[in-house]
Amino acid sequence: MGANTFGEIFTVTTCGESHGPALACIIDNCPPGVEISAEMIQHDLDRRRPGSTRFGTPRNEADAVRIISGVFEGKTTGTPIGLIIENTSQRSQDYSEIMNSYRPGHADYTYNLKYGIRDYRGGGRASARETAMRVAAGAVAKAVLSKYYGVKIGGCVTAIGTIYTDKFDPEAALESPFNFADNSKTMQAVLTEYMDNLRMAHDSCGAVVEVRAQGVPVGTGSPIFARLDATLAHAMMSINAVKGVEIGDGFKLAAMRGSEARDLITESGFASNHSGGILGGIATGQEIVVRMAFKPTSSILTPGQSIDKFGHSIPDLVTKGRHDPCVGIRAVPIAEAMMALTILDAIMMDQAQCAHVDRSAMFQIPVEEE
Amino acid sequence: MGANTFGEIFTVTTCGESHGPALACIIDNCPPGVEISAEMIQHDLDRRRPGSTRFGTPRNEADAVRIISGVFEGKTTGTPIGLIIENTSQRSQDYSEIMNSYRPGHADYTYNLKYGIRDYRGGGRASARETAMRVAAGAVAKAVLSKYYGVKIGGCVTAIGTIYTDKFDPEAALESPFNFADNSKTMQAVLTEYMDNLRMAHDSCGAVVEVRAQGVPVGTGSPIFARLDATLAHAMMSINAVKGVEIGDGFKLAAMRGSEARDLITESGFASNHSGGILGGIATGQEIVVRMAFKPTSSILTPGQSIDKFGHSIPDLVTKGRHDPCVGIRAVPIAEAMMALTILDAIMMDQAQCAHVDRSAMFQIPVEEE
Amino acid sequence: MGANTFGEIFTVTTCGESHGPALACIIDNCPPGVEISAEMIQHDLDRRRPGSTRFGTPRNEADAVRIISGVFEGKTTGTPIGLIIENTSQRSQDYSEIMNSYRPGHADYTYNLKYGIRDYRGGGRASARETAMRVAAGAVAKAVLSKYYGVKIGGCVTAIGTIYTDKFDPEAALESPFNFADNSKTMQAVLTEYMDNLRMAHDSCGAVVEVRAQGVPVGTGSPIFARLDATLAHAMMSINAVKGVEIGDGFKLAAMRGSEARDLITESGFASNHSGGILGGIATGQEIVVRMAFKPTSSILTPGQSIDKFGHSIPDLVTKGRHDPCVGIRAVPIAEAMMALTILDAIMMDQAQCAHVDRSAMFQIPVEEE
Amino acid sequence: MGANTFGEIFTVTTCGESHGPALACIIDNCPPGVEISAEMIQHDLDRRRPGSTRFGTPRNEADAVRIISGVFEGKTTGTPIGLIIENTSQRSQDYSEIMNSYRPGHADYTYNLKYGIRDYRGGGRASARETAMRVAAGAVAKAVLSKYYGVKIGGCVTAIGTIYTDKFDPEAALESPFNFADNSKTMQAVLTEYMDNLRMAHDSCGAVVEVRAQGVPVGTGSPIFARLDATLAHAMMSINAVKGVEIGDGFKLAAMRGSEARDLITESGFASNHSGGILGGIATGQEIVVRMAFKPTSSILTPGQSIDKFGHSIPDLVTKGRHDPCVGIRAVPIAEAMMALTILDAIMMDQAQCAHVDRSAMFQIPVEEE
Repeated sequence: MGANTFGEIFTVTTCGESHGPALACIIDNCPPGVEISAEMIQHDLDRRRPGSTRFGTPRNEADAVRIISGVFEGKTTGTPIGLIIENTSQRSQDYSEIMNSYRPGHADYTYNLKYGIRDYRGGGRASARETAMRVAAGAVAKAVLSKYYGVKIGGCVTAIGTIYTDKFDPEAALESPFNFADNSKTMQAVLTEYMDNLRMAHDSCGAVVEVRAQGVPVGTGSPIFARLDATLAHAMMSINAVKGVEIGDGFKLAAMRGSEARDLITESGFASNHSGGILGGIATGQEIVVRMAFKPTSSILTPGQSIDKFGHSIPDLVTKGRHDPCVGIRAVPIAEAMMALTILDAIMMDQAQCAHVDRSAMFQIPVEEE
Repeated sequence: MGANTFGEIFTVTTCGESHGPALACIIDNCPPGVEISAEMIQHDLDRRRPGSTRFGTPRNEADAVRIISGVFEGKTTGTPIGLIIENTSQRSQDYSEIMNSYRPGHADYTYNLKYGIRDYRGGGRASARETAMRVAAGAVAKAVLSKYYGVKIGGCVTAIGTIYTDKFDPEAALESPFNFADNSKTMQAVLTEYMDNLRMAHDSCGAVVEVRAQGVPVGTGSPIFARLDATLAHAMMSINAVKGVEIGDGFKLAAMRGSEARDLITESGFASNHSGGILGGIATGQEIVVRMAFKPTSSILTPGQSIDKFGHSIPDLVTKGRHDPCVGIRAVPIAEAMMALTILDAIMMDQAQCAHVDRSAMFQIPVEEE
Repeated sequence: MGANTFGEIFTVTTCGESHGPALACIIDNCPPGVEISAEMIQHDLDRRRPGSTRFGTPRNEADAVRIISGVFEGKTTGTPIGLIIENTSQRSQDYSEIMNSYRPGHADYTYNLKYGIRDYRGGGRASARETAMRVAAGAVAKAVLSKYYGVKIGGCVTAIGTIYTDKFDPEAALESPFNFADNSKTMQAVLTEYMDNLRMAHDSCGAVVEVRAQGVPVGTGSPIFARLDATLAHAMMSINAVKGVEIGDGFKLAAMRGSEARDLITESGFASNHSGGILGGIATGQEIVVRMAFKPTSSILTPGQSIDKFGHSIPDLVTKGRHDPCVGIRAVPIAEAMMALTILDAIMMDQAQCAHVDRSAMFQIPVEEE
Repeated sequence: MGANTFGEIFTVTTCGESHGPALACIIDNCPPGVEISAEMIQHDLDRRRPGSTRFGTPRNEADAVRIISGVFEGKTTGTPIGLIIENTSQRSQDYSEIMNSYRPGHADYTYNLKYGIRDYRGGGRASARETAMRVAAGAVAKAVLSKYYGVKIGGCVTAIGTIYTDKFDPEAALESPFNFADNSKTMQAVLTEYMDNLRMAHDSCGAVVEVRAQGVPVGTGSPIFARLDATLAHAMMSINAVKGVEIGDGFKLAAMRGSEARDLITESGFASNHSGGILGGIATGQEIVVRMAFKPTSSILTPGQSIDKFGHSIPDLVTKGRHDPCVGIRAVPIAEAMMALTILDAIMMDQAQCAHVDRSAMFQIPVEEE
């Protein structure tokens, strides 16, 4: 499978560099008959769009998506869906400085050694700009999930640097300039000060993002290597800058006892959800809970020790350019998109294998709607 | 791809239930000419084998592996390698109690709803017994990695319940009855007491396991969806009971600043390894560092509230049987195996795409041998 | 994907050499709840079994299959199905002659150059013995097709060397010692004489096999690269010795006119089936018709010019051993198996993508039951 | 894998409908450092382009390709290559007639039943216009094959309706208005008359196309399901209107004897090439020979019996529009492209698995350069 393809059945293949002519993706095996429009996709793209907040990169891209195939009279036809976004805000600039140097924390060195060549303009393919097509494809997956399966996905930032919250509130996050789960005035003030200090210090910070899915049918996912936890971990860890993934209580479970951690079951439902809605790799019908850690942006104005591609020292390399001080902030729709793609793919695989299992004839543990 | 297949090029497909006749796996696209023997595979199997320590399940399986194809005169031939382990210690017992009940924290409910049928004997396919074939396949991958690529993989337990260490010492772990990174007498005493208390309390605990790979060639791994971090996360999260995965500093990175977290580069090497040896999804040549959280064993003698498959309450379900009080302890060779499979697959893919990139002509950042 | 795996969803992975300890396969993503027994699989294996007719190889293998996982209380559980056949009739013999020589028409040279090593005993993995596991897996696929989809598959030999028939009659073929579509006394006599002459001449011949599927639901198959014609062609051409594949009228269509070749449609059904039941890569609901050409067995007692692996001439190499004078004769169940695997995989993919298309609400072109 | 993706490692994913806004493809895992330009791709596209000959469709498309990613400073970077062709000659017309009717021999019925919806304009995704992206991707594959592996691919039409030739001459075909292997004046006259008669009769005809590859390294291809014959058969049978595929002597082999058919080997090379350059699924180093049958165009002006989507009879349906009377004529670059994609993918897989096999140290059967 191509390195730029995600999914087994509902597949998404992307291309495009930060400063190339355009980004594009092709979605394959999409169920037919689902209403899709450029506007609907644009909605999610706008949530990720650079230039939308002063806490993000000042690069301003319209990110206007065009549907070039697979949709006819407003509905998916079952043939591959082609989406394209033209790049419009590539700044013509002098790249002579970065073409030979390796920015610390960046993929410059690894791309160069792997391929022997790299498009260094704005990070090329390694730029988080690539994630725009994930969001676009995710919007299509969300539409299918919503129409045919009643699955709803939402997310929010739960930590920015050392500031964190125990809340999970996607509604609040939509109002928050930080996509933060706590949008109280107090928290806004705290975060604004924190981010302003960071910016003045020419520094950046990491973040934690949490995404959840409701309504995922029990039975979704497969055991062993295709465990739903495993494919979700794959999905999230494939996002730029993500370095940790948890399902349910995640790392906290390591320090817990079995008597606390196992989710007891009553006639009226599960008593808890430490396992994040997945047992044996298969969805229980409960809310699916995924959390991920973003490392701090490596592109900061604070000079750092590095080398050029000939091995010569550059003691004070500064990464200019238009960068997010905290990449996690704009990552919520990306994480939601990856969750949507993963879950839809798993549902379709379950449908392929288990179409003749009559689950409605079996007792299903009740799950409260949230 | 089958749910029981792992890998894109170097693929492993497994089958077998806990109390079925046998476990088996087929390894495909293995490089030819590599020395493989049942003894070599047995060595790793014995590290995972039940019955080897009093801190594991009392089930005693020889786990004797038989090579049925793909090896000729002691060497791999490039054709698929078939491995089989007969189950010998299935206890004939009365399953009438568990055939209809759903053990909390187990996959009984999800398997039943997914498939409408399940082999309930000893957990069937959901039993961790399945991981024996991962270890066997991993031993083959390790042999290839060692012979052709100089890659070395090791791991240890770094936390058991609330007891943890900052050490990473695979040598010490090999001597430790807990596979723990700190095998000092003090730590042995602490852990023995901790585990004995757990056992007396009829309870279990979680664990953290860390695995590392040295000598992974710079350039291994692919960007975007095939990121080496992502495939490693997939690999580890596919292991029974794993609920969290980190690369390098993982979740700690979320609370760090860019100026701390980015790994500076000097002429004589990287100044740190917060990123765990992977940038942009591609190996830097540094040590690759992966950590994972195991949830506590759900099978404990403490009764718990549950239901049967008809939805009737079972207020005090007890999970009898032979179980590990901490599944993380025997998991080190499993995690090593998954790391070996993932890295070898990535190396082979790199070789497929980039065979004509002359990396020896480029400056490579030095990495110290450890 | 491994070279020894077939299928996207319903996948089959095989291993085993002609003179190794055993053959095995793992079937993944099989729908649960289907009755499967060793006896049922044995039935098809016996049709392919060596030693069953004097017109096949005298090697006598019981080909007794053992189910090692994925079946519980007589039904598939949705977990991977493991099947194993022990090899029992490997003759201990002197291989010194063939270990270094390249038999003309055989894969000795290509295996050796590809892998640098080969298991030369009885052709190793290149032996048609490998196809036993295809037949076993095909029997499982047939059971699923029959239970859930009403698909019926049958085949027969339609040409042996220069003797051919226009008939297609799987029932007759089951009675025929040649699996031939025409089992009349006259034809039996003709074929017996033909084969006896061949044998006396120390020669072999090719064959044509035709397989058909009835009841394949309209909509099965996907356009473009996953066309049902294409995956069927792949399936058949992957069988040992097959060198040509046709769908429907195949090569005859090249010399036809559009006005003859297009299948007209009336309210009561298609007027013809030149296209072999597939249009645009998708099943029409008509009978699916596939034909394939087997080359003559290369292993004959007539000496032939060849070389050894050092490049030295061997003017009169004779291929001893136990060989079929016409490999096509025992190939009918193999071709049926590959058709079953291909069609089931396509049906499952269709189910994954198009579960919400209500075909019963659309007009379907009637197809007469045969 | 998506139905619109071809290949395991060097993958091509396409999208686009006949009368939609554009066609596009994404090529993944392409080796880096290969010179690619729009002009180079255009060269092959122009050979397939509609409107280039009076024996093809009168639709006139510039088919101007734009590279949107994966190429930097004229070379592939190893990141995905995006190609796009805008559709410019969609005629605005009245589709009310065809939107509800099923043209005989077309995919109208099967698409409608499969998806419950179809883009009927100009055949939508089922139009052969889709093959433009195959040709574009094939041009990239050819460039890689040429630069790194010395593989050369060529093809020609060898039969048009009942007119055929035994010649294989790609050079002559390039000069021939019919892409025919025999471009003698006599043959030109024969074919011109044949085609003119067809056109006057409002009819169409089938064709045979043959493609060959020279310089394919011995060892390319894998046994069993990934046989090079099988993947080539898949590739060719996935082209619109192809209904038969042969490797080497193909169906003729069925009527041959083993003593004729096996390719004897001398110290100076193979004595013949009945097997088409492939033994056991692996390339011998000889020329690889593939032949395929195209059915006659179903779109003809001769009225035919059909039905509408409600099942009502349409006794004299006429397929208007701009159609090729013989689709095989423009198919040569398509078949070449599919061959290039298949062989490059197999070479890359071989490189992944067998990089450490030192073939130069083994005796290789000489192959004469042609």
